[in-house]
Amino acid sequence: MTANDTSGLTLYELAGADPEVRFSPFCWRVRLALAHKGLTVEHVPVRFSEKDKIAFSGQRLVPVLRDGDRVVADSWRIALYLEERFPDHPSLFGSQAAIPLAQFVNAWADSVSPYLLRVILLDVYNAVHESDREYFRSSREKRFGMRIEAFVADKEANLALFQKQLQPLRTILTDRDFLAGDEPTYADYCAFGMFIWARGVSSTVLIPPDDPLFAWHEHLMDAFDGLARKAPRHRS
Amino acid sequence: MTANDTSGLTLYELAGADPEVRFSPFCWRVRLALAHKGLTVEHVPVRFSEKDKIAFSGQRLVPVLRDGDRVVADSWRIALYLEERFPDHPSLFGSQAAIPLAQFVNAWADSVSPYLLRVILLDVYNAVHESDREYFRSSREKRFGMRIEAFVADKEANLALFQKQLQPLRTILTDRDFLAGDEPTYADYCAFGMFIWARGVSSTVLIPPDDPLFAWHEHLMDAFDGLARKAPRHRS
Repeated sequence: MTANDTSGLTLYELAGADPEVRFSPFCWRVRLALAHKGLTVEHVPVRFSEKDKIAFSGQRLVPVLRDGDRVVADSWRIALYLEERFPDHPSLFGSQAAIPLAQFVNAWADSVSPYLLRVILLDVYNAVHESDREYFRSSREKRFGMRIEAFVADKEANLALFQKQLQPLRTILTDRDFLAGDEPTYADYCAFGMFIWARGVSSTVLIPPDDPLFAWHEHLMDAFDGLARKAPRHRS
Repeated sequence: MTANDTSGLTLYELAGADPEVRFSPFCWRVRLALAHKGLTVEHVPVRFSEKDKIAFSGQRLVPVLRDGDRVVADSWRIALYLEERFPDHPSLFGSQAAIPLAQFVNAWADSVSPYLLRVILLDVYNAVHESDREYFRSSREKRFGMRIEAFVADKEANLALFQKQLQPLRTILTDRDFLAGDEPTYADYCAFGMFIWARGVSSTVLIPPDDPLFAWHEHLMDAFDGLARKAPRHRS
């Protein structure tokens, strides 16, 4: 298999008003994992109101990976699947022994994402397709018990709380280039996915140049021929 | 070397009013690491006002490990030192490849400890020796910009914030017994150290029996012949 061969894989991803704007941090973890493995896949955009497109997966959340007859949902399970399915491609984890603690980083990123949501939820709302907005607003306002506008009202304080949650990432990336060593692995993509998510919908600066995360973020923006940097962003 | 041989190592640890009460979470990480390695060491209690005891280390923080002419400070550096110095003893990390992400868990635990401090700081204050109290109070009140009593005043809210920070730990320990697999490793000790710290000075229940962390916590309390469970606690 060469890099230009299609792998026969299809990735179903969340899409915004512009179907080229893919902003789900979970879908980005998989996008980066596929690029790391050197796999070219077919991408299918899925809006919130198009969940019928992934009904075959037996659940309602993207990302979903289809590989012939096999269907895998949930970004972490997809990463494990890719690692096992393509053992001769570059390892996503560097080593089998690093997988359990990579899952800790995955869970940590999941726990930090809600803090970022308090900064960018209105931006996400503005980036979803018009036909998705009523669903998006009502589901989020029910979940958070307040209007979207109130949820993000104190942007500065919410941003400070998000920044505080990044402390473990800063500690490690002050010491070395990537979370698991000298090269990016899936643990990095879990953390980095948050920043591409925000970048896709918002112009808020999360990592200023003097931040210990800056070099790491820039490197990952440029990785895989600029996959993240070239990604279309929502234009309001 | 048998389990009963002394290793020639000396560990300098923070001690309370009762010198047998050792409540530093960082010292506990090292205590558990030493037990994991099967090493018997000499323990030297160090009160806040006895920092001259560790002046030889060139810095003022415990834990400090002395191994003949070699002196290592900082719990993470001590763990790496023990792993390299005693390669034929059980591995603290399971595998070299797991070390970088174990450091992430170490950094994560460091970032969560301040949330627990907002629950137990007054208990810690009460557990330190009378001669340490003035220093302890003034240094903490300067650091936090408020009275110790105010810092912990909203115990219920502070406890809820701490519990929320434990989410990644809960996610992983719902899936498996220990952070890096089927057996405890240093990553577990980093997280568990917080709970022994609290237990040494406070009667606050942090992990009720229906918590996904309960079985993990109980196992580690019993590990190494009940090292943590037998540890003396402050009696007010």
